[in-house]
Amino acid sequence: MPAPVRLIVFDVNETLSDMSPLRARFEEVGTPGYLAETWFAGVLRDGLALTAAGGYASFQAVAEAGLRALLPGLDGWHGDLDHAVARILDGFGDLGVHPDIPDGMRQLHAAGLRLATLTNGSATTAERLLSRAGILDRFEAVLDVAAVRAWKPAAAAYRYATEWLSADPAETLQVAVHPWDIDGARRAGLQAAWLRRASPAYPHVMTAPTHTAQDLRELAGMLTS
Amino acid sequence: MPAPVRLIVFDVNETLSDMSPLRARFEEVGTPGYLAETWFAGVLRDGLALTAAGGYASFQAVAEAGLRALLPGLDGWHGDLDHAVARILDGFGDLGVHPDIPDGMRQLHAAGLRLATLTNGSATTAERLLSRAGILDRFEAVLDVAAVRAWKPAAAAYRYATEWLSADPAETLQVAVHPWDIDGARRAGLQAAWLRRASPAYPHVMTAPTHTAQDLRELAGMLTS
Repeated sequence: MPAPVRLIVFDVNETLSDMSPLRARFEEVGTPGYLAETWFAGVLRDGLALTAAGGYASFQAVAEAGLRALLPGLDGWHGDLDHAVARILDGFGDLGVHPDIPDGMRQLHAAGLRLATLTNGSATTAERLLSRAGILDRFEAVLDVAAVRAWKPAAAAYRYATEWLSADPAETLQVAVHPWDIDGARRAGLQAAWLRRASPAYPHVMTAPTHTAQDLRELAGMLTS
Repeated sequence: MPAPVRLIVFDVNETLSDMSPLRARFEEVGTPGYLAETWFAGVLRDGLALTAAGGYASFQAVAEAGLRALLPGLDGWHGDLDHAVARILDGFGDLGVHPDIPDGMRQLHAAGLRLATLTNGSATTAERLLSRAGILDRFEAVLDVAAVRAWKPAAAAYRYATEWLSADPAETLQVAVHPWDIDGARRAGLQAAWLRRASPAYPHVMTAPTHTAQDLRELAGMLTS
């Protein structure tokens, strides 16, 4: 019997934000749209590599370095690298949330649950995202991993959030679309909810979630019924 | 003044092997060839996430889980998932080495340098690759990270190789095309050579290499002149 959930900590990139408009930014600077996914997987690979090796760089720095390594190597691409990097990175500031997020968040907040975010990206960008969606005032804290200099899924990142919020990890629910985030939260002693969205299956190499839902509306229903 | 190099430890995937034929495998099962890069970046992301969280799964297991999560989510793809996964993973067993590798390796071996490999993949697959290239007998050891249950760039992985080979890390040179592998080796106290190949620039977020060369022929010239 798991402990009751009192605090919910949300991942931000892709879990709250819809990153699909970044494809258009890649196309706008003259590269194929699918590069958005290759690049984002590479940013996580590089940031997690640094964490695994005991190092740290900000999401912004890793993301920029990734673009500067990726774009000039493309067959036939002769764009302006500085312009392309700026256009793509600025795209993070324009993203919106998935349609299920505002309703789900209001329902969880109305039920008296504590809400926070924890991102490998920047807390400032996350605050702007939540503000544009009209739900920033529901959040007790908007955190990023800069203070602890270790990216999720390192245990130190989750511990930083629960300690900052004086919460019991066993009563804290990490919510993410990324199985590696679920896996890390579970290993750090938290409960963890996987939002499936378009994913066909949860990978068996990762620790299983304690909750699985199609989207945040469904998860809010499960937690408040 | 760095210590003299006595042992050289090679990364395998992409550093020795030419992985471009995997694109054709993706196309053969009815998916776009560019997915090979997105998938491989995701395999490293997931394996490194497990390492950062204190967990472990084999390259083979992470690679298979990645395909099972990626392929069914593709717009309009209705292939046979088991068949597609098998065809793509079997592709690793058919790769060849880059054209500069055999000559460079023979030159390094002839100069009396100790040679080994260390891969996040499987040592068996690496042995077959080196055997097909006719250079397996130049290697003192063909290692993978299974014994230490931590993927490179965790320090434990490099330490495992130098301890297994009774080598001084300061006299050991890690060779890779991946900046995150260079960064990890440097943090673990090794020297590290970056083979540029098609890369436009070394990312500033990663610890710099001690040696940079276009390919293994050029590196061999630098080390044996």
